[in-house]
Amino acid sequence: MEYPSKLIEDAVNEISKLPGIGKKTALRLALYLLKQEEPVTENLSSALLNLRQKTKYCKICHIISDSEDCTCESLRKDASLLCVVEDTPDVIAIQNTAQFYGYFHVLGGIISPIAGIGPNELNIKSLIERVKKSEGTIKEVLLALSPTMEGDTTSFYIAKKLQPFNLKITTIARGVPIGGELEYTDEITLGRSIARRLNYDITSD
Amino acid sequence: MEYPSKLIEDAVNEISKLPGIGKKTALRLALYLLKQEEPVTENLSSALLNLRQKTKYCKICHIISDSEDCTCESLRKDASLLCVVEDTPDVIAIQNTAQFYGYFHVLGGIISPIAGIGPNELNIKSLIERVKKSEGTIKEVLLALSPTMEGDTTSFYIAKKLQPFNLKITTIARGVPIGGELEYTDEITLGRSIARRLNYDITSD
Repeated sequence: MEYPSKLIEDAVNEISKLPGIGKKTALRLALYLLKQEEPVTENLSSALLNLRQKTKYCKICHIISDSEDCTCESLRKDASLLCVVEDTPDVIAIQNTAQFYGYFHVLGGIISPIAGIGPNELNIKSLIERVKKSEGTIKEVLLALSPTMEGDTTSFYIAKKLQPFNLKITTIARGVPIGGELEYTDEITLGRSIARRLNYDITSD
Repeated sequence: MEYPSKLIEDAVNEISKLPGIGKKTALRLALYLLKQEEPVTENLSSALLNLRQKTKYCKICHIISDSEDCTCESLRKDASLLCVVEDTPDVIAIQNTAQFYGYFHVLGGIISPIAGIGPNELNIKSLIERVKKSEGTIKEVLLALSPTMEGDTTSFYIAKKLQPFNLKITTIARGVPIGGELEYTDEITLGRSIARRLNYDITSD
């Protein structure tokens, strides 16, 4: 594509480096910014720079944070429950359910031999340390990883490593999603949710 | 949505002001930038700022440009043909066809009473001036506006204004798109392309 100015060409090239954004969308976004007042672009630009340059990771949970000190204490209630997740979006997703009151531990990825990510690239060592240091305060570790091959491998690896600590190790329930149509559910999910069927509890939903 | 840090919240808020980008996509983009090396974000950030702060509009054509002086001379060949378009993406689209060698005139919008845009908000006055000043060099004005109600209104208005100059006034051909299936073409387009049918020329494609 030929652009009428170098400035717009540069902007389009940089914007289209973002995932899922092609040259056409990038051009649309660049022209949109051109039509807005200057502060719109200034604020966007500085928010991105600030995010990248100032973001810290909590030394304990490895959650994205404004400081390196753990700010979890103010948010959490149940110190006996620790939830292990792959990355920050999972923390946000779980927070939004309002069903979880324990602490988090972010791995920063999952074991993936194809991508060259082994256990040492992840925050697994610090997880073990954390459990050890808690001296029995942590009673349950909830492995909330994606139900994929890599996720299952990672869960298995962590569960093995945590065995000596005499903890309750749990994983999120798998089954037919709420609101999902039975006939469109894939066979493996449906098969498993039949094999691991639950007692129907007339008192709860 | 609750975010684990103020920095990411700010970034998500700013990114999601862009058209077609919601909070979820904004979060994905922000986390993507966090995982990249710092220069990726720095380059994006400065390209956006440069674009917004340094972009000029050519005084004659009103095309987005790196300087206010018209750089068209080096690009164009046919000074007798002037193409009137709504905005910059149209210039790029027409350039990419490699079928147009004349000059451009960007209106900066189209007449839209609903959006409160009248002829005075657009670069129509400067178009008339430009035609007048050319003293007969411009022989044809091609109105390449979108085939919508607003586009047609704007074309009509400009054509009226250009009447005294004894020019050839043309518009882009409307009809069934090349590669389009006849049965899925809307009735109005198909109806018009039958009413304005062309002689079949055996020598051209």
